[in-house]
Amino acid sequence: MPCSSQLISNGDTLITNNTSVNKIKILYHLGITSENTNFSAKYGDVKFVCLGGSCTRIRNYAKQFSQLYGYQASNNLCKTDRYEMYKTGPVLWANHGIGGPSLSIILDEILQMLLCAGATNFEMFRLGTSGGIGVQPGTVIVSNGAINTALEPFRYQWIGGELVKRPAILDQQLCDQLYHIAQQQKVPVVKGVTLCADDFYESQYRGEDGYFCDNNNNKKMDSMNKLIEKGVKNIEMESVYFAAITYRAKIPGAICCVALVNRFEENIIKISKEFHEEAEMRPFKIISEYIYRKLNLKNGK
Amino acid sequence: MPCSSQLISNGDTLITNNTSVNKIKILYHLGITSENTNFSAKYGDVKFVCLGGSCTRIRNYAKQFSQLYGYQASNNLCKTDRYEMYKTGPVLWANHGIGGPSLSIILDEILQMLLCAGATNFEMFRLGTSGGIGVQPGTVIVSNGAINTALEPFRYQWIGGELVKRPAILDQQLCDQLYHIAQQQKVPVVKGVTLCADDFYESQYRGEDGYFCDNNNNKKMDSMNKLIEKGVKNIEMESVYFAAITYRAKIPGAICCVALVNRFEENIIKISKEFHEEAEMRPFKIISEYIYRKLNLKNGK
Repeated sequence: MPCSSQLISNGDTLITNNTSVNKIKILYHLGITSENTNFSAKYGDVKFVCLGGSCTRIRNYAKQFSQLYGYQASNNLCKTDRYEMYKTGPVLWANHGIGGPSLSIILDEILQMLLCAGATNFEMFRLGTSGGIGVQPGTVIVSNGAINTALEPFRYQWIGGELVKRPAILDQQLCDQLYHIAQQQKVPVVKGVTLCADDFYESQYRGEDGYFCDNNNNKKMDSMNKLIEKGVKNIEMESVYFAAITYRAKIPGAICCVALVNRFEENIIKISKEFHEEAEMRPFKIISEYIYRKLNLKNGK
Repeated sequence: MPCSSQLISNGDTLITNNTSVNKIKILYHLGITSENTNFSAKYGDVKFVCLGGSCTRIRNYAKQFSQLYGYQASNNLCKTDRYEMYKTGPVLWANHGIGGPSLSIILDEILQMLLCAGATNFEMFRLGTSGGIGVQPGTVIVSNGAINTALEPFRYQWIGGELVKRPAILDQQLCDQLYHIAQQQKVPVVKGVTLCADDFYESQYRGEDGYFCDNNNNKKMDSMNKLIEKGVKNIEMESVYFAAITYRAKIPGAICCVALVNRFEENIIKISKEFHEEAEMRPFKIISEYIYRKLNLKNGK
């Protein structure tokens, strides 16, 4: 049980069973506190949270969504330089930086913020780029699972000297719905497992392109074959954290990434700048269509 | 052995034993390639690399160093939005984002870049903020060791299905020199072990302040006492990666962080904005004095 569920909102002040005193909520990395922000007025209506690594891309997604669906886009809502966050009507857009630890912070603080705001029944998405495994550049992978570099569907977390295994599970219904939309959009798409690596070079079998290379190309192909046996379709650096946190919080979560390279064949991205830019928009187009349909449904249209 | 050491520089083109063909070096996250940058002309003179989490802070450090020592500060040298990097004479400044995976990428790409540039005998520093353990806010901790959340001085890295243990070892001579300078500057300073956590809330025993809190305050104090027994003086999120990578690359590395809170006593930062700003400059003042002295020494002044 998240302890935040014990919080009772009283305007901008929160009362918690933990301390039995009024408590100011401080979200350090967002730079947002219950003193400078009325959580419920500003974030109570959020129904969709979209996360991506790059701040420029997430800013662009928010802008495009605003133009497509007529919701005004906010300015950057983060008051620190650690992340950027935008809001377009009921959709929140934030960049999570690189790697699971960086994602874990923004996700935790957004969850705290939304819970304090009284937001209900929201869904979370990670939209990203990735290396494909056995799929051609431009292919969208909708994740039906996430595994760590030990090839297990868990996030390992040390808390107070104890190793805790958190199941990394994504919402299968959301996965199916996004896959279906991609098919309708005639975007090349597969469902598959996503491998979450802790670094970009060695853990992703790019040894010879990084600074260190203790392993060699034969080992790379052995590893790639193992991944294919496990149903892995792409590699990135955040999926296990995203899946473990959303599953634990009982919030439907989905990951939709485009492959920029087929890592089974090569290490280096060779697509043109134009194709790269177009491909980066594919996950956005799928997610935004999903959101549009769901909002229309709710409005009874 | 890093395979990059097998690279032979030939102007902007690199020849590698791996492929026996001319190869263009691409540093994806810096946005720098051997096609758009003459590595040796631009980075061959680098002797000091200073890394920190926040882009604003690192930009400010570069600016201050430029003003103090008369080196012109470059514009942001990163051509992507993932990191920022600045150069002031022989000193490179870059932000590493949040968490070990994010740091591992910029560190790997800077190492590749400097090796290709022919830079020699350089040293690396991480300057940051952290939570102190049993030390008062404003205290500078110069790390004499780094441990992971299993309380072991290793970075665990999965490569191609194998778990590799990388020793996380910092340069003790550098540590002593920075400690000595801090004492001369009359800054409150301690040497100690730094705990590298994978998240900000639960792994750092802030359970009750994050979204989830399966553990409680008693467990927190048990954990804190264990840390104190291990000689831990502060907690942050990158030290083990930094120590393991610099040690493996045989490059002297040091970490110098200021504590913004004494986590043994409280979870929340309570210092004033002014003190916060002054405290954030302490690691910079120590490192820049170290660099100044070393440069003067080399110039025979």
